[in-house]
Amino acid sequence: MIKVGVVGYGTIGQRLADGVALQKDMELVGVSDVAPTLPVMALKERGMPYALYNAAAENVELFETAGIPVAGTLEELIEKSDIILDATSAGIGAKNKEIYKKFGKKAVFQGGEKNDVADVFFHGYANYEKGLGAEFLKLTSCNTTGFIRAIDCLDRLVGVEKVAVTIVRRVADPGDYQRGLTNALQVDKAPNHQCVDLMTIMPHIDATGILVHTPVTHGHIITLVVTPKKDISCEEAIEAFRQHGRIRVVSLAEGFLGNASLFKYARDLGNPRGDMYEIALWTDTVVKSGKDLMFAINIPQEAVTIPETMDAIRAALQMQTDREEALGLTNTYLGMGKWKK
Amino acid sequence: MIKVGVVGYGTIGQRLADGVALQKDMELVGVSDVAPTLPVMALKERGMPYALYNAAAENVELFETAGIPVAGTLEELIEKSDIILDATSAGIGAKNKEIYKKFGKKAVFQGGEKNDVADVFFHGYANYEKGLGAEFLKLTSCNTTGFIRAIDCLDRLVGVEKVAVTIVRRVADPGDYQRGLTNALQVDKAPNHQCVDLMTIMPHIDATGILVHTPVTHGHIITLVVTPKKDISCEEAIEAFRQHGRIRVVSLAEGFLGNASLFKYARDLGNPRGDMYEIALWTDTVVKSGKDLMFAINIPQEAVTIPETMDAIRAALQMQTDREEALGLTNTYLGMGKWKK
Amino acid sequence: MIKVGVVGYGTIGQRLADGVALQKDMELVGVSDVAPTLPVMALKERGMPYALYNAAAENVELFETAGIPVAGTLEELIEKSDIILDATSAGIGAKNKEIYKKFGKKAVFQGGEKNDVADVFFHGYANYEKGLGAEFLKLTSCNTTGFIRAIDCLDRLVGVEKVAVTIVRRVADPGDYQRGLTNALQVDKAPNHQCVDLMTIMPHIDATGILVHTPVTHGHIITLVVTPKKDISCEEAIEAFRQHGRIRVVSLAEGFLGNASLFKYARDLGNPRGDMYEIALWTDTVVKSGKDLMFAINIPQEAVTIPETMDAIRAALQMQTDREEALGLTNTYLGMGKWKK
Amino acid sequence: MIKVGVVGYGTIGQRLADGVALQKDMELVGVSDVAPTLPVMALKERGMPYALYNAAAENVELFETAGIPVAGTLEELIEKSDIILDATSAGIGAKNKEIYKKFGKKAVFQGGEKNDVADVFFHGYANYEKGLGAEFLKLTSCNTTGFIRAIDCLDRLVGVEKVAVTIVRRVADPGDYQRGLTNALQVDKAPNHQCVDLMTIMPHIDATGILVHTPVTHGHIITLVVTPKKDISCEEAIEAFRQHGRIRVVSLAEGFLGNASLFKYARDLGNPRGDMYEIALWTDTVVKSGKDLMFAINIPQEAVTIPETMDAIRAALQMQTDREEALGLTNTYLGMGKWKK
Repeated sequence: MIKVGVVGYGTIGQRLADGVALQKDMELVGVSDVAPTLPVMALKERGMPYALYNAAAENVELFETAGIPVAGTLEELIEKSDIILDATSAGIGAKNKEIYKKFGKKAVFQGGEKNDVADVFFHGYANYEKGLGAEFLKLTSCNTTGFIRAIDCLDRLVGVEKVAVTIVRRVADPGDYQRGLTNALQVDKAPNHQCVDLMTIMPHIDATGILVHTPVTHGHIITLVVTPKKDISCEEAIEAFRQHGRIRVVSLAEGFLGNASLFKYARDLGNPRGDMYEIALWTDTVVKSGKDLMFAINIPQEAVTIPETMDAIRAALQMQTDREEALGLTNTYLGMGKWKK
Repeated sequence: MIKVGVVGYGTIGQRLADGVALQKDMELVGVSDVAPTLPVMALKERGMPYALYNAAAENVELFETAGIPVAGTLEELIEKSDIILDATSAGIGAKNKEIYKKFGKKAVFQGGEKNDVADVFFHGYANYEKGLGAEFLKLTSCNTTGFIRAIDCLDRLVGVEKVAVTIVRRVADPGDYQRGLTNALQVDKAPNHQCVDLMTIMPHIDATGILVHTPVTHGHIITLVVTPKKDISCEEAIEAFRQHGRIRVVSLAEGFLGNASLFKYARDLGNPRGDMYEIALWTDTVVKSGKDLMFAINIPQEAVTIPETMDAIRAALQMQTDREEALGLTNTYLGMGKWKK
Repeated sequence: MIKVGVVGYGTIGQRLADGVALQKDMELVGVSDVAPTLPVMALKERGMPYALYNAAAENVELFETAGIPVAGTLEELIEKSDIILDATSAGIGAKNKEIYKKFGKKAVFQGGEKNDVADVFFHGYANYEKGLGAEFLKLTSCNTTGFIRAIDCLDRLVGVEKVAVTIVRRVADPGDYQRGLTNALQVDKAPNHQCVDLMTIMPHIDATGILVHTPVTHGHIITLVVTPKKDISCEEAIEAFRQHGRIRVVSLAEGFLGNASLFKYARDLGNPRGDMYEIALWTDTVVKSGKDLMFAINIPQEAVTIPETMDAIRAALQMQTDREEALGLTNTYLGMGKWKK
Repeated sequence: MIKVGVVGYGTIGQRLADGVALQKDMELVGVSDVAPTLPVMALKERGMPYALYNAAAENVELFETAGIPVAGTLEELIEKSDIILDATSAGIGAKNKEIYKKFGKKAVFQGGEKNDVADVFFHGYANYEKGLGAEFLKLTSCNTTGFIRAIDCLDRLVGVEKVAVTIVRRVADPGDYQRGLTNALQVDKAPNHQCVDLMTIMPHIDATGILVHTPVTHGHIITLVVTPKKDISCEEAIEAFRQHGRIRVVSLAEGFLGNASLFKYARDLGNPRGDMYEIALWTDTVVKSGKDLMFAINIPQEAVTIPETMDAIRAALQMQTDREEALGLTNTYLGMGKWKK
């Protein structure tokens, strides 16, 4: 049993812990945070299903006052773990890396860290092999993780030459009072970093893109204009997407009208936290212009990177050397694919 | 074991079914709906934990095409049930009542129906005794259900003379594309129906109020100006609220900044669908002006009426003739009160 | 002096009336509406700068009660006009056309009407010549009017082969309580009608596109992936856009962060109603992928079609047979181009 | 002619400049700012109707590069003025005060500054006499300015004993990308500062209140529960509000559904920047509970303090010693009251 520690128990950290707990060949040692935040209070109210380690020695009393049982220090969590999933705020991961190194432990960082924190910039589907045995891996961010699934799917089918991406981005997660936008769309400098990241992961593809922030909280919507190397019909593309383990093919007729329908559906599924691991792809949006394929996908930003992070553990610790075997195990343990007939 | 059927499997119906399934002295016979909507598709993807009955004979093929196993007709569901929870769209309940009557079955309607559909306009805490043995009960709507908890709490403590209510109302639930408001507040004719309903349930109280619609989806926030019969300090009031089984006393310092914090916290608790049954009350908002007490509460509109509906079943079927015993059982089975030290 | 009547005094009708009043070679006969709506009440409060005609005989008393001086009937307005600008709700224009015909008057319809209401589907820049002498013209809708400006600009420079459009659409205008979306993005069936309209106006271009609704009120943002016939640098494209009379080239560094910055800026300019006639184009978004140019524009939906409607009057009545002369006069009278050094 | 300088040319500064320019007994010397912001660029595009002074010597080149003609330094503006309207960001005013003192000039600060910046905390209607001859005055903030109009109106009629206020607050102005909230309501510590301010201005009234932030940009909506000293009917109250020079009495039936209707209506009026100086009060919301009156008003946050700031100039310089005469002149010059029959 691979022992995994999760450092940082916020939006991503909570979901990583849940994800590890579902992997039958992994054991969650525990999670750590620096203060009795609301997620930590929720952990207490749930009866401490996961052990909590205190990552800020100076805050011992805060945890005591809040009645949170603490299992030990950050260093103790690291020591007990074979690998660390770092889900701290952007920039903290780079500092933590020195501690992981000191204890000789591997670590997987999330997309908010700078690329140079890691030896390998990783995506389970697109470059699993690169992660094999690596010490430090960094995941692509939520949008990039999501759209690479679709691009990689087409790339393995017919080859992809170039991509133009429009990201219609949600500005905050539900419950986030730090970020926000009110009755405004916001434009960023192009090309967006997601396209640059795509070209880093898949260097044979030329990519560019524009990002527009929108005042919503449930899922980014992305349109992609993909130039394949070989002509392919909309139907063939849709069929390939349907076969993919992390793409949910949906339609307007079923009632999936936008990102909020998918958020609601995941809640109605009884998924933990109302989460969804799959990106969704609307058949209604798949169109062609010349050889170019255009389509729209939905990115459930809170949970989408969890499967690829499980893949990263498998690669780093060489639990499976075969990409398909690794992806398959992650998917099975996360309960993905149930929507398929 | 009391057998309960749920008619209408939308936002409320789904939660009623979940609520009944948690009551150890009740058995969920099944749920019904008229078409393979997204909630019904989610039920299928979950592996049909609840039996589904078809409430629209003409739609048999729709269910077949969608691959939904159907357990029978609406009439069969009613026949097998001791009592029906009607959670259909406003107006349909009145029509369904004739069928319930035909089969000699009791029924509980939600707040969207007109008052005359029922013999008793019901609130578990405020008038449980009125519901004892009734044939047809109607629940108060989400806002009224929520604020009556707080008003009844003070009324039992020191008596309440009058109330002025400002409802800052969410316009739609997450995933609702039918209703919506964009960058606008909307005012309604005063007094709002919720105040009138309060006076129907608690006729000894004088109430008025204004409702303002706001473009958000997670929880109404209500301010109440309560004139008690006897002077009471803010601390005494807060202590009484803390003792209440369906009021969660929270503070800004803990990180509960508004309705979205509570929505997020309920998801982090792992509650089914990320729901919360309790109203929340901010200690930071409890202030006095003369003898008047003013405070703000949060109403989780999707789930708040579930406990009082369970109470209604208990009253209608005289499962418990004692109010406190009934409320206590509902609360225990729903897992409420875990947040208390 | 060409005499112009405006039928329908809503969001567009008000702005058409203002636009006509600014054209030194046109005279606004008056405007009509069917009831004393808020825009009509505002006209009264302003002291009736425009004569109001009653388009609903049965509502005479409503206007009287509201104290609105009425100059005559819809028929009288039509009779006194050389040409009618129809800005009624979608579908009404088709009915009104019969009256215009009866009086032998030409008319210009807005984008909400079906194409077959008109002889010519018109855009001042792209096909002015087609409108010359036409009886009935229909304008392109706000998005199409806006992006055709940019596409036509590139097309006249180097030729355009194909276009992929992502429309990030505002769902309602400020003050619109009929339409609305709350915390949700919504996807439409692709390709969107705007692309089909583009191909009708510019049949030599292949176009496709996806539309995403967003809960904001100030301006659509559109990303365009344009394949030119001849390679062109970003700088050359930007320079061409700068020369265009109805494109405002802006940058993030100036403080234009999104659609709301432009709305605010137009108010700060003291423009009537805080309107802007130009589309805006961000230099920061102009990027290339291979030969393809990608960029983002802002469409001020309430006012963007006004200039092209003035062009339509000029074409229909052959006030100018030369396209550039006509566009130049419209622009000068509307005060466009002041932002250029 | 009283010479007035406006320091700070943001949202409020721009409107103060416009307001002064409309006063026939005042002369606008000019405005100042520290950089070529968008409002300054708009001033340039309008052809510099107001002289601009540079308040940041180190930024001379920035203005030059942007092509903005500069009339002088901040000190020169102050020297030429009889009185300064300080509309800088919160905290800057306190620093500027030293410069005003050095030049022996009076100044009026906006609500964002701390109370101790001024000798008098001022509201034109409620305490005009206190401002007579004062050196430094501070205006109440937008919400307080607005609701004091209504409370003062009732207070002069029948006396007011106490008030409970619920402020449903817009979080940002249109075009503000610094502040924002997305799909969330936010609660503040009670009582809100506006109630404390009310008691400072009108010390004979007891006040408390709660503030809820909402993700909208057009106008705060406030509900007030007012306990009058003498019983009064809803109709009598409405009639008094109708007579008030800065309260616009509106109704749902006219089409005023909320804050966005009022914003739209002000644009349709052709008001500069689409602004409105009056608060609006809905007849539909005026209700009673016992002797208490409850009603809802709308606060147009960008422009509401302009009239009271004009009053402050009149008081400070003793232009009129009579309150009613001063208020009347401000109202006449600002064009208020046209909506009355």
